[in-house]
Amino acid sequence: MVDFRPILFVNGLLLLMIGGAMLVPAAVDLIFGNPDSIVFFASALLTLFVGGNLAIAYRLSSDHLTLKQAFIMTTLAWILIPAFGALPFVFSELSLSYTDAFFEAMSGITTTGSTVISGLDSAPPGLLLWRSILQWLGGIGIVVMAVSVLPMLQVGGMQLFKIEAYGTPDKILPRAAQIAGAITTLYLLLTLACMIALWSAGMTAFDAVAHAMTTIATGGYSTHDASIGFFNDPRIETIITIFMVLASLPFILLLYTLRGRPNIMLRDQQVQFFLALVLFLIIATSAWLISFKDFTPLDALRGASFNVVSILTGTGYASTNYNAWGAFSTTLFFSVMFIGGCAGSTSCGIKVFRFQVLFAAMGQVLNQILRPNGVFLARYNGKPIPESVITSVLSFFVFFVLVFMLLAMALAATGLDAETALSGAGTALANVGPGVGDTIGPAGNFQSLPDMAKWLLSIGMLLGRLELFTILLLFTPRFWRA
Amino acid sequence: MVDFRPILFVNGLLLLMIGGAMLVPAAVDLIFGNPDSIVFFASALLTLFVGGNLAIAYRLSSDHLTLKQAFIMTTLAWILIPAFGALPFVFSELSLSYTDAFFEAMSGITTTGSTVISGLDSAPPGLLLWRSILQWLGGIGIVVMAVSVLPMLQVGGMQLFKIEAYGTPDKILPRAAQIAGAITTLYLLLTLACMIALWSAGMTAFDAVAHAMTTIATGGYSTHDASIGFFNDPRIETIITIFMVLASLPFILLLYTLRGRPNIMLRDQQVQFFLALVLFLIIATSAWLISFKDFTPLDALRGASFNVVSILTGTGYASTNYNAWGAFSTTLFFSVMFIGGCAGSTSCGIKVFRFQVLFAAMGQVLNQILRPNGVFLARYNGKPIPESVITSVLSFFVFFVLVFMLLAMALAATGLDAETALSGAGTALANVGPGVGDTIGPAGNFQSLPDMAKWLLSIGMLLGRLELFTILLLFTPRFWRA
Repeated sequence: MVDFRPILFVNGLLLLMIGGAMLVPAAVDLIFGNPDSIVFFASALLTLFVGGNLAIAYRLSSDHLTLKQAFIMTTLAWILIPAFGALPFVFSELSLSYTDAFFEAMSGITTTGSTVISGLDSAPPGLLLWRSILQWLGGIGIVVMAVSVLPMLQVGGMQLFKIEAYGTPDKILPRAAQIAGAITTLYLLLTLACMIALWSAGMTAFDAVAHAMTTIATGGYSTHDASIGFFNDPRIETIITIFMVLASLPFILLLYTLRGRPNIMLRDQQVQFFLALVLFLIIATSAWLISFKDFTPLDALRGASFNVVSILTGTGYASTNYNAWGAFSTTLFFSVMFIGGCAGSTSCGIKVFRFQVLFAAMGQVLNQILRPNGVFLARYNGKPIPESVITSVLSFFVFFVLVFMLLAMALAATGLDAETALSGAGTALANVGPGVGDTIGPAGNFQSLPDMAKWLLSIGMLLGRLELFTILLLFTPRFWRA
Repeated sequence: MVDFRPILFVNGLLLLMIGGAMLVPAAVDLIFGNPDSIVFFASALLTLFVGGNLAIAYRLSSDHLTLKQAFIMTTLAWILIPAFGALPFVFSELSLSYTDAFFEAMSGITTTGSTVISGLDSAPPGLLLWRSILQWLGGIGIVVMAVSVLPMLQVGGMQLFKIEAYGTPDKILPRAAQIAGAITTLYLLLTLACMIALWSAGMTAFDAVAHAMTTIATGGYSTHDASIGFFNDPRIETIITIFMVLASLPFILLLYTLRGRPNIMLRDQQVQFFLALVLFLIIATSAWLISFKDFTPLDALRGASFNVVSILTGTGYASTNYNAWGAFSTTLFFSVMFIGGCAGSTSCGIKVFRFQVLFAAMGQVLNQILRPNGVFLARYNGKPIPESVITSVLSFFVFFVLVFMLLAMALAATGLDAETALSGAGTALANVGPGVGDTIGPAGNFQSLPDMAKWLLSIGMLLGRLELFTILLLFTPRFWRA
């Protein structure tokens, strides 16, 4: 039997944190004289009360978590946080149904960025801030998980980064808590830098804060229905593009860089591949826009850079309705959104390192076919990849596709058309945000979908953000048996 | 440099065989007094001439093939045979374009069964027979390849069956040539048995021969536009269902069974899983037809058995337009067609054993996550699966999905709608035959597709039949370098 007490203790602490975070929009609404202030105070009270009770009831119940407890704790946390984070949406003047509110909160905390709310431009400031805060907390949450919990859980090849972070002789920060602390500081600094840059470029202070948070989180919630297109400013787009790219790099390596050792980052295979991919995609898309859509070179570069990086990193901002780019946009969307950024960043999707492990494994298979008696090792960052990592990563791909197909079929069964079902499943699993087509494309939103589809998409976002295995493992009999 | 001479020699022999086979429909058309007789004689002459020249020019150039030569020989054979096999379609009274003719011949030799010809019921007998012969030769071709060439080439985990066939201490037939001979005899016997059964059930002798050939090949070409629905006879459907299942079992194990050792077959994990799957799918589909479509139990069982087995085994006959069964048929089609039968049979798709290796590998991954220090072995048929097989099989899945997506995107780019593009890519790669929707569904055919789509689908059929790697390897620089 699994001891649930330490699990509930940690979840209690997290709810206290979320409840505390609700006091920020409460204060903002109070300052702006918005009646929703009371909604945030009430939601905060309820959340703090439940969190406090859990934390006190189960405090010091154990000084460490077993592997199984870590799995349950993680999954439970990413369900409880949106469950409570949804409360302000329900009670506010928007009066969302609980389904819509949960969808919005899950989309926030998983840094997906799909929304059911239209009329953002006239929405109360506290609520807009709350959406940004959810994504911002989700972003730091996933980075801390990626450097501490996921490698321990060996999820989809993440054990590769256990070695990276702890096993090197010259480890700069020996303990996970210290790493988490340093990363949080870095996260704050990046957000601050982005905010100042956006504000200098002409955003209001409020918009700058809100967008800095959702940029660094690669989340994509905006304070305007037209997303970044609202500002129509190449400087703002450039700033956001740069910070989206930064937030998609491994935070551990950003730390090294800040401490004066940029070579570690520059020599990292994952970073090299990611940056090369970004460059290639921008050039290819620009070339296409110039050749077939009569864009001027500068307009093409501007549209391509922003939207390619936004989809690739799973942010999901739009500076323009790229659906209007025709069949090309659909192909681009589907080929790029699944890739994502680097492991250990806030970005989403399958992650660059899994493709690198995949290519290395393919090379090994092909070599083995050509020279049956040879011994070949797949390598990553110069080191041989353990067989268990290869199997984990390849299994991750297979599972990703299976879950994608099942989710798309289930969505189609709720009555969605093929384009909406397929791109909806993809955008949820890859935590991107907008889909393809008139309904859920960059110019639409998720409001009109049936409730069942919203719950399915919420499950998809959760699965994608926790890298599938964390959750799927809980549904195997062997997890509960042994 | 690769020495092409032995490759051309073997291909010359194969062309001699195909040219010889053309004399059969030539004779039949002569007997029926059909003018197409001369077309077949002319095509045979041309094919025999080219084949003979190749065989004589390069005879005894080498007494064995290297691994690389085997890859090139295999791929070249499966391109040259349809290239010449298409000739009768071009010159006949149907006057197909070469694109259509090549598509039809490729669909035949790969035992896919997609067709561009409508008006089959009034087509000349020689031509109908030629379509059946192409599938029949393709069927025996793939079985012989699966027991001799593919395990040697280590394609997608097929090395698993190298051990099975040659490594056991009590090997009943020591040499590959002997196995091929025994399998050919078995193939002939099965075809004969199926033919007699169909004829007894009321088919004309001609229809019985044509359908016996395409049943044992799990090919699916019929002599009627309405496919097996033309006969509307439960006895005929039952006979065909039984023989489609038989043709999807490993031929090696069928041999053991005929030699009085049925236990080897019954204890084989792949056979057990396949038969259980067939039963499960028939029961589930019947239950659905009874519950939601008001079928009588007997009608449901009849419709479900035939069509489920037809799609699962990649045969592609239709006894009814199962598209009319609604959204369920689409889901059924997409979930079942990729599975296929057992390795070493004429059936198509990913094959049951790969799913079993996948499940075993998943179990290993999950065990490893739960007990990081444990040692776990994935097992198949009681024996540990070598890591190289696991990597090959998982890579096969990943490649299958990648190729499927690329093919579907390429088909969509030729102007097909999403349903046609997706199901077309699937039906080609899995060598099934019909797709989904009004255009290429069981009630339609491939005639109206643009030429480019037909070439893409031909490539898809070839890739699927040769298990992807055989062909993809040729496009890697390392194949030609080393």
